[in-house]
Amino acid sequence: MTEFNAKDHPHRRYNPLTGDWVLVSPHRAKRPWQGQIEDVSNEALPSYDSSCFLCPTNTRINGKVNPAYNKPYVFTNDFAALMHDTPDYQRSDDDLFVLKAERGTSRVICYSADHSKTMPELSVSDITAIVKCWIAQYQELSQHYIWVQVFENKGAINGCSNPHPHGQIWAASSVPTLPAKADSAQRDYLAKHGKNLLLHYAGQEQQSGERTVVENEHFLVVVPFWASWPFETLLLPKRQVARMEQLTDSEQLALADILQQLTIRYDNLFQCSFPYSMGWHGAPYNGDSTEHWQLHAHFYPPLLRSASIKKFMVGYEMLSETQRDMTPEQAAERLRALSNQHYKQQQR
Amino acid sequence: MTEFNAKDHPHRRYNPLTGDWVLVSPHRAKRPWQGQIEDVSNEALPSYDSSCFLCPTNTRINGKVNPAYNKPYVFTNDFAALMHDTPDYQRSDDDLFVLKAERGTSRVICYSADHSKTMPELSVSDITAIVKCWIAQYQELSQHYIWVQVFENKGAINGCSNPHPHGQIWAASSVPTLPAKADSAQRDYLAKHGKNLLLHYAGQEQQSGERTVVENEHFLVVVPFWASWPFETLLLPKRQVARMEQLTDSEQLALADILQQLTIRYDNLFQCSFPYSMGWHGAPYNGDSTEHWQLHAHFYPPLLRSASIKKFMVGYEMLSETQRDMTPEQAAERLRALSNQHYKQQQR
Ligand SMILES: O=P(O)(O)O[C@H]1O[C@H](CO)[C@@H](O)[C@H](O)[C@H]1O
Ligand SMILES: O=P(O)(O)O[C@H]1O[C@H](CO)[C@@H](O)[C@H](O)[C@H]1O
Repeated sequence: MTEFNAKDHPHRRYNPLTGDWVLVSPHRAKRPWQGQIEDVSNEALPSYDSSCFLCPTNTRINGKVNPAYNKPYVFTNDFAALMHDTPDYQRSDDDLFVLKAERGTSRVICYSADHSKTMPELSVSDITAIVKCWIAQYQELSQHYIWVQVFENKGAINGCSNPHPHGQIWAASSVPTLPAKADSAQRDYLAKHGKNLLLHYAGQEQQSGERTVVENEHFLVVVPFWASWPFETLLLPKRQVARMEQLTDSEQLALADILQQLTIRYDNLFQCSFPYSMGWHGAPYNGDSTEHWQLHAHFYPPLLRSASIKKFMVGYEMLSETQRDMTPEQAAERLRALSNQHYKQQQR
Repeated sequence: MTEFNAKDHPHRRYNPLTGDWVLVSPHRAKRPWQGQIEDVSNEALPSYDSSCFLCPTNTRINGKVNPAYNKPYVFTNDFAALMHDTPDYQRSDDDLFVLKAERGTSRVICYSADHSKTMPELSVSDITAIVKCWIAQYQELSQHYIWVQVFENKGAINGCSNPHPHGQIWAASSVPTLPAKADSAQRDYLAKHGKNLLLHYAGQEQQSGERTVVENEHFLVVVPFWASWPFETLLLPKRQVARMEQLTDSEQLALADILQQLTIRYDNLFQCSFPYSMGWHGAPYNGDSTEHWQLHAHFYPPLLRSASIKKFMVGYEMLSETQRDMTPEQAAERLRALSNQHYKQQQR
């Protein structure tokens, strides 16, 4: 009888942060693609675009004027999904009609004044300024809210409506669904194993190297064992750090360095401005102890085979469970093999 | 002080089937859209296409020839995500590297020989034949597998690679993540309230009518109180039915009727062939009792504002929790108001 081999045989893997499983069908990578082909634009952008709502000195849709900023600039979203003055309310009829008012805020963070440069094209010192800006936002917003979600939607294919390099910061008065799961998973793991889940995981990954994409003195990036998206990655500090505010100056610099290295590899994979959603999970500001928490960033990129062919999370994924073709080990091998010099600079 | 009003104020709602929350930001529907615009084709298709892998008598990519079928036709997917002969295997190192071999099968079901007609354009008797075919598949596959997922990906924008009307049937040897959650949620609700969760819910919705889209003698369609997708719906029988095989002949006919009525309304919403993923959840074949289960279908359509503007489930959705703009009540009102005659027939 044939022996099981994770590179050839369908199997499921367990995500210890969410409790969800993912179906891996490695043999299926061979199927031809006859589905939708996305538009890709490789057009060079100007450094300043007078019609962009995010460029310095331009007027936004609601009449407000951006300052002539030259470092990361934060403002409240003109169409914020959360508001600071929502009146209190809750109901829970029959445990079926359960509803709670929610307070919060939504902000936009412009990474750079330069309209044409996304993260992989910024210098390490420019990215360090973004890290410092995120930290200042955590420090301010954690005074008022239990949860602060720092994230970025990159690329039109990924729902981003403006190519100007920017991210978002939403704050909420409840811990949302996914961080609440990550919180209890890490707490339960510490209680059961006496170890910090993700710190222990990072140690195992460093030893094996099989899923490592890139690492430096303070940080490690892997395609996690339980990755859902084809080229999903997880960015982890090498010591226990519950929140971004706890990073030392040299760790902040190392974080900027690893963000640059990872996003350059992403751009190099299909020689395009690589789309993704990325975001940070740190301990919620609920007064609980934090030794079970490990700060981490998730990168969820939609592309599958090329700059114009994406993975559709539909059908079986929406109704049964997430499915992937290539294994996480194969994805890590491809990302690891790429140059850490941006393809646009190689071409020069 | 202002009083809370679900039509104006941000709030969260709880999904009792998954345990997840959704953030509702009704005031946000006003924001302008500057993001990606999808291609929409309203081109009429021929009834037979010689290059289609699913049309009767055509040769598929692997050399197999489709019969001259004239009712729903099922065959094993040429690039199946699951295989019946995967060798056994499992590991669980440190509760972090948890992996299990999975056996199963993936089949394709061609709804009709006519290449040009999706469900809303088929007759009730044609749809009844699809229902009977689904039932036969459940009866056969439940002999070998614990889970049978009947689903359909419709529309290129939704990852469907062939416009020929078809769905899929995947069977698995474990209960996947989402039905496993629905199973325990329904079991816990029965234990706590002495009631079948979705049967009780259907009764409440019938009384209020606020979220009802369409109903007939045996079935009800609502935009659920906890809907994630803008025009998501939930299709429910009016008596307790754990699995599709338990439907009587007249219920099968009523199911075909309600499927036609719902999908016609969907096509009428933006006057296009409306994309969605739909699929059925019935009690798993694991030998457990089934009085806590209620058979239901989920429809998850990606469109938001028009045939070419979809909702992106990115960023906050992937990292914190799902977010929607318009309320489920507003979505239901719009769908309910539509004609139950297909727009293509109205134009004639
Ligand atoms: O099976 P298909 O049509 O080739 O593929 C489609 O449906 C599958 C099941 O929902 C998904 O996993 C794929 O991402 C999607 O492209
Ligand atoms: O906030 P934006 O950029 O207008 O909107 C984008 O990001 C949001 C947060 O991830 C999502 O809810 C929207 O679906 C997406 O289009």
